[in-house]
Amino acid sequence: MIKQLIDKIVEKDAPIVVGLDPMLDYVPEHILKEAFSEYGETLKGAAEAIFTFNKRIVDATYDLIPAVKPQVAMYEQFGIEGLIAYKKTIDYCKEKGLVVIGDVKRGDIGSTSKAYAVGHLGKVKVGANEYAGFDEDFATVNPYLGSDGIKPFIDICNENDKGIFVLVKTSNPSSGEFQDQVADGKPIYEHVADKVREWGEMSMDGDYSNVGCVIGATYPEMGEKLRAVMPNTYILVPGYGAQGGKGKDLKAYFNADGLGAIVNSSRGIIAAYKQEAYKDVDELHFEEASRRAVIAMKEDLKF
Amino acid sequence: MIKQLIDKIVEKDAPIVVGLDPMLDYVPEHILKEAFSEYGETLKGAAEAIFTFNKRIVDATYDLIPAVKPQVAMYEQFGIEGLIAYKKTIDYCKEKGLVVIGDVKRGDIGSTSKAYAVGHLGKVKVGANEYAGFDEDFATVNPYLGSDGIKPFIDICNENDKGIFVLVKTSNPSSGEFQDQVADGKPIYEHVADKVREWGEMSMDGDYSNVGCVIGATYPEMGEKLRAVMPNTYILVPGYGAQGGKGKDLKAYFNADGLGAIVNSSRGIIAAYKQEAYKDVDELHFEEASRRAVIAMKEDLKF
Repeated sequence: MIKQLIDKIVEKDAPIVVGLDPMLDYVPEHILKEAFSEYGETLKGAAEAIFTFNKRIVDATYDLIPAVKPQVAMYEQFGIEGLIAYKKTIDYCKEKGLVVIGDVKRGDIGSTSKAYAVGHLGKVKVGANEYAGFDEDFATVNPYLGSDGIKPFIDICNENDKGIFVLVKTSNPSSGEFQDQVADGKPIYEHVADKVREWGEMSMDGDYSNVGCVIGATYPEMGEKLRAVMPNTYILVPGYGAQGGKGKDLKAYFNADGLGAIVNSSRGIIAAYKQEAYKDVDELHFEEASRRAVIAMKEDLKF
Repeated sequence: MIKQLIDKIVEKDAPIVVGLDPMLDYVPEHILKEAFSEYGETLKGAAEAIFTFNKRIVDATYDLIPAVKPQVAMYEQFGIEGLIAYKKTIDYCKEKGLVVIGDVKRGDIGSTSKAYAVGHLGKVKVGANEYAGFDEDFATVNPYLGSDGIKPFIDICNENDKGIFVLVKTSNPSSGEFQDQVADGKPIYEHVADKVREWGEMSMDGDYSNVGCVIGATYPEMGEKLRAVMPNTYILVPGYGAQGGKGKDLKAYFNADGLGAIVNSSRGIIAAYKQEAYKDVDELHFEEASRRAVIAMKEDLKF
C-alpha cells in the first residue's frame, strides 16, 4: 500500500495529506442550518453537516492531493451517527481516488489488536462471508504495548495490502514526558524507532515499508535524526501550520530521493476560510479557501 | 465515579469485572443460528448474535458483580453494526445497575483527546442540545502522548462524574519492550505511575481517585511496587485466568483496606462453558457456566 501512496504523491507532486478533523465550529453556518433543518439539532444532524462539509472540501481539493487523514475522534464524539459519517467520508474519498489514512491511534494486544486491525484494515468473517468494517488504507497505531500490539496489524496489512503509521515522536508539548526519557543511552522514541525499522522489514513494498511512523513537525532536529535511523520508513508528519511547524523545517524528514515523508495539515486547510489570508472568500464558497491553502502548502514544501 | 464503583464492589463483595469481549467463536451455535436466520450471515447478524450472547451472560451474573468491561475492538471489527451492539451492551448493563468500563484504550492530544473523552464519557453539544455518544462510566486511556493526552479526559471526568484507567504496565509478554526501559533509575512504567498519581490528585472522589490505572496480573512483583507508588489509585487488573494470573498472586495489588484493585476476567467467564470444568453444562444454557465461573473467581480472590 505504501507504493500506492508514493505513486499518488509523485503523480500529484504533493507530499501532503489533508486532515479531515471537522469540529462543528469549523462548519459554515449555512451547512449547519441546512442539516439541522432536515434532521434537527441531533447527532444525525451534526453528522450530516460534517459529511457535507468534508465532501465540499474533498471536491475542491482531490485533484491536488494524494491522501486524506480523517481523525476518528472527531466523529466518535457524535457516537454511532458520527461513525457513520466517518465511514461515509472514507468511502467518498476512496471514490475520488484518494488514499485514506485513518487516524485512529488504536493499539492493544494479541486478538484484541487483531480485531482493531480487522475492523480498520481487514475483513471480518461472518459465517461464509467476509466484510470490511471501515476499510481505511492506513491506520495510525500506538506502540506502548510493544510488538504484541503491532504484529497483528502487520499480519492484516500483509493479507490485505494495507499499511500503518506507528507513533514514534508526537507533535504535542508534553510528548517528551515519556517519549524523551533516556534509557540505555537513547530516548524512548528512538527505541520505538528501532522497533519500527525491525517491524518494517516484515512488510516491505518497493523501497519503503508498509509500516510507517509518526513524527511531529514541531521537533525537526529529532526528525532529522530519526530519518537516518529508519531509512525505509515513511514518516507521517502532523503539527504543520496550526501547531507551529513550517515548511523549511521539514526538509530533514525527507530522503535524498525527495520521498519518505507526507505532511498533514488539518485546521490550516479545512478551516482556511476563517483565516485572515482568505478573508476575500465568501463563506458560501468556503472550499475555495481550502483549495488555495493546499496550493500554498504545496509551495511551502518545495525545498 | 470511583466511589460508585467501590460501593458496588463492597455491596457485591467481589472485586471483579467481567470482560465482555465476545469473539464469534465464543458464541454458542444456537445463538448464531438464530441471529443468522433473522439477519443473514451479515455484520448485523454477527452484531445481534454478540448482543444476545452478552445479554444472557449479564442476566446470569449481574447480581454477583459490580462491573463489566466491554472491549470495543471486538465490536469495532464488525464496523458500524458492531458498534451499535457495543452501545446496546453498555445501555443494557447500566439498566442492570452495573458500572461499565469501556476498554477503548484511546489517547491523542488536546482537542482530539477531548473529542474521545466527550464521545465516551461526556456530552457533545449540537446546537442547543447535548448528547452522550457512548456514555460508559470509565474508559481506559493510553499515556504515550503524555499529559496533553490525559488532561482533557480528566476535565470531562470532573464535569460528568466519570473515571479513567491509564495503562501503566500491561499484561502481555512484550509489554517490557518500552514500558520496562529504565530511565533516570526507574522503568518507564514507574514514570507513568508517578504521573498517574499526580493526575489523580486532580480528580479525587473519597479516598481514591477517578484516575485509576491498568497493571497486568502477570507482573505481580511490579504490581506490589506500583501499589506503594500510587496509594490512592484504583488498579484495573487484566490478565487473570486465561493469560496466567492467579488469585493468590494478586493480593499485593490491594491495599490494607481490602480495596484498591478490581480484577478482570474475560474468556474465563464468558466462554466458561467451553472449559473442561463446566462440561456438564448444556450449551443451550451456557450462561450457567459463566455464573459458576464468577463464583469460583470470587472464591479464588479471597485472601
